[in-house]
Amino acid sequence: MNVKGKAYRTVWLEGKTVKIIDQRKLPHSFEIETLKSTAEVIRAIREMHVRGAPAIGMAAAYGMYLAALEACKSGDFERSLQDAALKLKSTRPTAINLAWAVECMLQAAKAARRVQEKVSAILKEAQNLAEEEVENCRRIGQQGLGLLEQISRRKAAAPVRIMTHCNAGWLACVDYGTATAPIYEAVRQGMALHVWVSETRPRNQGAKLTAWELEQQGVSYSLIVDNAAGLLMKKNLVDLVIVGGDRVTRCGDVANKIGTYLKALAAKDNNVPFYVAIPSSSIDWKMKDGLAEIPIEERDANEVRYVDGLFGSAVGQVLICPPRADAVNYAFDVTPAGLITGIITERGVCQASETGLRHLFPEKTEAAA
Amino acid sequence: MNVKGKAYRTVWLEGKTVKIIDQRKLPHSFEIETLKSTAEVIRAIREMHVRGAPAIGMAAAYGMYLAALEACKSGDFERSLQDAALKLKSTRPTAINLAWAVECMLQAAKAARRVQEKVSAILKEAQNLAEEEVENCRRIGQQGLGLLEQISRRKAAAPVRIMTHCNAGWLACVDYGTATAPIYEAVRQGMALHVWVSETRPRNQGAKLTAWELEQQGVSYSLIVDNAAGLLMKKNLVDLVIVGGDRVTRCGDVANKIGTYLKALAAKDNNVPFYVAIPSSSIDWKMKDGLAEIPIEERDANEVRYVDGLFGSAVGQVLICPPRADAVNYAFDVTPAGLITGIITERGVCQASETGLRHLFPEKTEAAA
Repeated sequence: MNVKGKAYRTVWLEGKTVKIIDQRKLPHSFEIETLKSTAEVIRAIREMHVRGAPAIGMAAAYGMYLAALEACKSGDFERSLQDAALKLKSTRPTAINLAWAVECMLQAAKAARRVQEKVSAILKEAQNLAEEEVENCRRIGQQGLGLLEQISRRKAAAPVRIMTHCNAGWLACVDYGTATAPIYEAVRQGMALHVWVSETRPRNQGAKLTAWELEQQGVSYSLIVDNAAGLLMKKNLVDLVIVGGDRVTRCGDVANKIGTYLKALAAKDNNVPFYVAIPSSSIDWKMKDGLAEIPIEERDANEVRYVDGLFGSAVGQVLICPPRADAVNYAFDVTPAGLITGIITERGVCQASETGLRHLFPEKTEAAA
Repeated sequence: MNVKGKAYRTVWLEGKTVKIIDQRKLPHSFEIETLKSTAEVIRAIREMHVRGAPAIGMAAAYGMYLAALEACKSGDFERSLQDAALKLKSTRPTAINLAWAVECMLQAAKAARRVQEKVSAILKEAQNLAEEEVENCRRIGQQGLGLLEQISRRKAAAPVRIMTHCNAGWLACVDYGTATAPIYEAVRQGMALHVWVSETRPRNQGAKLTAWELEQQGVSYSLIVDNAAGLLMKKNLVDLVIVGGDRVTRCGDVANKIGTYLKALAAKDNNVPFYVAIPSSSIDWKMKDGLAEIPIEERDANEVRYVDGLFGSAVGQVLICPPRADAVNYAFDVTPAGLITGIITERGVCQASETGLRHLFPEKTEAAA
């Protein structure tokens, strides 16, 4: 997508380095970070320079290419690569894309014989994965467009009002976004719409990232506190909710940014359609019960105690509570399938259920068994 | 309640001035502000130096005493007093206590004949109201204690885990608090408990005020982001929710700080009891349908764009979004009676319904008709 009119991806390879948009700095400053080693990629994922399930998957895939280059010099290619894979997978636990992308790289390496071929195979597979993720997000946009068009037709000229949570935009992916892909596609086709952007405490990805990227693309939006979601729906100011997902079980339970479940409850209570937009790389076919099985990341309590922002002209953080306040910081929650109207994937929109997902991805049936 | 071991109320009269704890400065600094005129009281309420439905009611009552003193010098006592009453009532629209307290003062003045008698009557009525509000909160503590004891017995020695939202503590009242009154009473009796404090965006009254006042009284708590309420309930980490209320209709719909409705939905979905603790001064017997009738205050969008806190050793605010981000800031939402397990009042705990409330307050039956 465009930044000041110039096209960017969120993560890409440049020679033997991984480039990322440093998301900690947005919206106050737009900076590209160069990652020169697997260790730097690991730190960038863990400390959320890059975040969003598909984007960290892709960063890890490119990280595996750096790991393969490092493994060539290590004396024990296999062991070194396996070590790096383990470390990359364990940087963040909730999103399935990370483990999935690393596994794709290992499989590609396995299929090649000599070390140099393995390195080339990983590079090629990472490049394929990036194009595939971009294409999947583009298709999610087309698949989701129909839902927006249906609502738009009912509303005549009035804007379609979409609520989203966190950032499931292009910054969370390689390009286009998941929840935002149908929005960008609809705007491209001239549809009038307005986005309610939930700030998404504690890290404010909505306020910092979604607001910024919508603004860059000229999409109309209003920022709200997470607490306002229920009232807006009760006041009939929301036509549909679209969020992303970090891990979807084969039965349609969805782990996504903390607070998603509350929005789903409010949507249900007010008959507002609630959609989850994900590429198939976010589906964990091995898991069934989201609440019981998906690991929920707990992050540093200081993310709750301090808020980042611009203080005068400097970026810094303010303490918002008593200095020794105990704080608890779960990063994700699980929305049960029963609260979800549908899942928007690159192959179409389906019910949040095993039947629905298997119908779209019949080749996954056995893997799930 | 105690601040560093010394007993305080949140608002009191000292000679011909109104004293308040300046709540904008907490938790980083504890300061008393002296209000010398009706205009200063009005500003203090509007700009939330003092906040919380019962506390702003009481500030307005004392403000009416200052208004009466000013009216004596105005040449037209009646008109001057009525003007001040109108201005005080219109400072904040949602809490009913404000209009109710001002109305009590006008009635007291009406019952007296000469100007000096009217001034004395207002002073006496304001003092009575303060004692009554303190006593009502003390009784709410006793009435609510039983609910905590029931849970505590089931849990043997494990702490009772209570979730609250915003600040319905003693800082929101004259003393004791509403939602916190049963907590303080239980702790006084030696019960083990733990409070989940929701930070309460956008103004963070939970993080700034509830955390601070619980800490001052030695009550165990953890701060959470508002988004975490659903997951904590799903993980079975919450035994009950107690919140305050800014206006309760005679049918039991409750306007309270934005986000309350989302917590009520999560409580319902997880079979967690959800209680609203209010003095009867928060009941609007004239209103029936909360969503349709209660006026919801919209505040400055900058409360969403900026977050207050301690930056190094200075208090300041950081910008958390793009500088020109549009933002919408509703201060309250409405929780329908059907989501509320019970209402804790000074006279007992009742169903959130017209029958329940009238049973406790039979003398209000006619006023409601």
